[in-house]
Amino acid sequence: MESVVIREPNKLVIEQRPLPLAANGEVRVKVKLAGICGSDSHIYRGHNPFARYPRVIGHEFYGIIDAVGEGVDPNRHGQRVSVDPVISCGKCYPCTVGKPNVCTSLVVLGVHRDGGFSEYVTVPAKNAHPIPDAVSDKHAVMVEPYTIAANVTGQVAPMENDVALVYGAGPMGLTTVQALKSVYKVQQVIVADRINERLAMAKACGADHIINNEQIDLAAFLNEQGLKPTLIVDAACHPSILQEAIGLASPAARIVLMGFSGEPCQIIQQGITGKELAIFSSRLNANKFPTVIGWLEKGLIDPDKLITHCFDYRQVVEAIELFETDRRKCCKVLLTFSA
Amino acid sequence: MESVVIREPNKLVIEQRPLPLAANGEVRVKVKLAGICGSDSHIYRGHNPFARYPRVIGHEFYGIIDAVGEGVDPNRHGQRVSVDPVISCGKCYPCTVGKPNVCTSLVVLGVHRDGGFSEYVTVPAKNAHPIPDAVSDKHAVMVEPYTIAANVTGQVAPMENDVALVYGAGPMGLTTVQALKSVYKVQQVIVADRINERLAMAKACGADHIINNEQIDLAAFLNEQGLKPTLIVDAACHPSILQEAIGLASPAARIVLMGFSGEPCQIIQQGITGKELAIFSSRLNANKFPTVIGWLEKGLIDPDKLITHCFDYRQVVEAIELFETDRRKCCKVLLTFSA
Repeated sequence: MESVVIREPNKLVIEQRPLPLAANGEVRVKVKLAGICGSDSHIYRGHNPFARYPRVIGHEFYGIIDAVGEGVDPNRHGQRVSVDPVISCGKCYPCTVGKPNVCTSLVVLGVHRDGGFSEYVTVPAKNAHPIPDAVSDKHAVMVEPYTIAANVTGQVAPMENDVALVYGAGPMGLTTVQALKSVYKVQQVIVADRINERLAMAKACGADHIINNEQIDLAAFLNEQGLKPTLIVDAACHPSILQEAIGLASPAARIVLMGFSGEPCQIIQQGITGKELAIFSSRLNANKFPTVIGWLEKGLIDPDKLITHCFDYRQVVEAIELFETDRRKCCKVLLTFSA
Repeated sequence: MESVVIREPNKLVIEQRPLPLAANGEVRVKVKLAGICGSDSHIYRGHNPFARYPRVIGHEFYGIIDAVGEGVDPNRHGQRVSVDPVISCGKCYPCTVGKPNVCTSLVVLGVHRDGGFSEYVTVPAKNAHPIPDAVSDKHAVMVEPYTIAANVTGQVAPMENDVALVYGAGPMGLTTVQALKSVYKVQQVIVADRINERLAMAKACGADHIINNEQIDLAAFLNEQGLKPTLIVDAACHPSILQEAIGLASPAARIVLMGFSGEPCQIIQQGITGKELAIFSSRLNANKFPTVIGWLEKGLIDPDKLITHCFDYRQVVEAIELFETDRRKCCKVLLTFSA
């Protein structure tokens, strides 16, 4: 079989590898579609501190179970599945409080262990989530990106009367906007980004207000519109955003961070405690695959609004480079593996 | 009647004032006991940005209803009451989500409006919470300080398997320790402070581990003991503590800030998101008087462990100065108003 392997930073090859065997409790998935995420690019470019090389990247993927290991129901053979990349121990403190995504011995497919940019991949059976017939292949491969939004929103219980401000109209921001509008029915969703084409996508995803915060002062805009954000999601992930968000937030607001910056940022605690703000953070997803599959089945979210490109996996370098360089026209890029 | 008035910063007088009349929806309380809090001292010294002068300070007080205004049940006359100092509109966003403590038109007795260091004080009837016979006067005056702990713990749902780390063994830290141990049955509670006498009080309040973090390295201590904090409360309120707490926290931990510092502090977001930490903040109390009165009625908490001194209100200056200067022997200082 062929696999997309990052041999070392900036060295991507399509490698011939032996067909893997499904171990105890595992299934083998014949990959049909995979999605490119920023973190794939970061591993390719050597910017992910967790990655070890060589590595088959890819943690957004969908396919068909074509072999099952011992202890796995043989009836799962042939099942359409989306794979949760989070592998956890189930026993440590984070696992016992429902946060396997920060398991103390966390393994992420495509980061710590070979992932889904491969014709075949073996994964724990419980990570392979069945996809209902009503959900198309292209939607099935988008489950993982939406689990990021499900994880963000699941922590803060959005309400209809929330005024939500989302920084960043990339895939994380756009999936969050769709979840806020269509799942939680939040009445006011504002999206700030510096790229007008991305803001147009946010509008298409349901944003009530879009603002180019490179060109227009966000605080002044919110003030003019009489909007006081009660829920702020930083999906742009610049470390300076947190203190700005603290300043813009309504008393009793919740803020969600998704940024992974190692740069220090300055905040003033009076601004947090004075308004009794709560600051959540969100990494990967905590058992959110069933949630998102449910959203897709009910037609609550529309992945088509994010998918801009589709390449054969043999064009993966071209696909990643497009993803990295053309943020105006390019949002979610898919790779096809088998027809 | 006599009232303790801060005419301007550093100018405290005992002033003759006319007996106030209970307005519509108000009751008049004949104050029996009041407690001195750090924020009383801050207003006295001119360090509270919200205070306007002249001001009758005092937001921890207990007494007897001796007059009721229009619209208030006349049967409340003679009722023993502890008074919630938080006056809120009930209509703004924070009020509608259960956070009247950060109401957009918040009024705090003893800060924005004259408080309880007075022989008599009028307050909204709904702020005067009846005290059951089983609860003594000295315990009744301690309801407000424990509502701070109830507010902190109420946000983070402590569990028996939590490993809790409390910074600061002043009144806020000690009430929190009692709540964690006796109400929530948390198995491991660690308290860090720089004063050994305060640490001894923490031990008496139920702390499982005490550590003088001026003398011993906290990270090394926790490491040696195999303790990974899953719940951290900063009741010491130094702005540098947050980044230390982020570093010490277990993945999936919650941190609660109580600090009001206007100084910037530096944090690194990777440390937060990498562990999916949640950072809460806590200000005053959100409808926690009934909760704490319930704790007292059930004997779950013991205010006697905090009360170190009691003065007649005419000795208020001496009392505040003792409170400010002798952090070794002095914890909670009460003032008596009427027998």
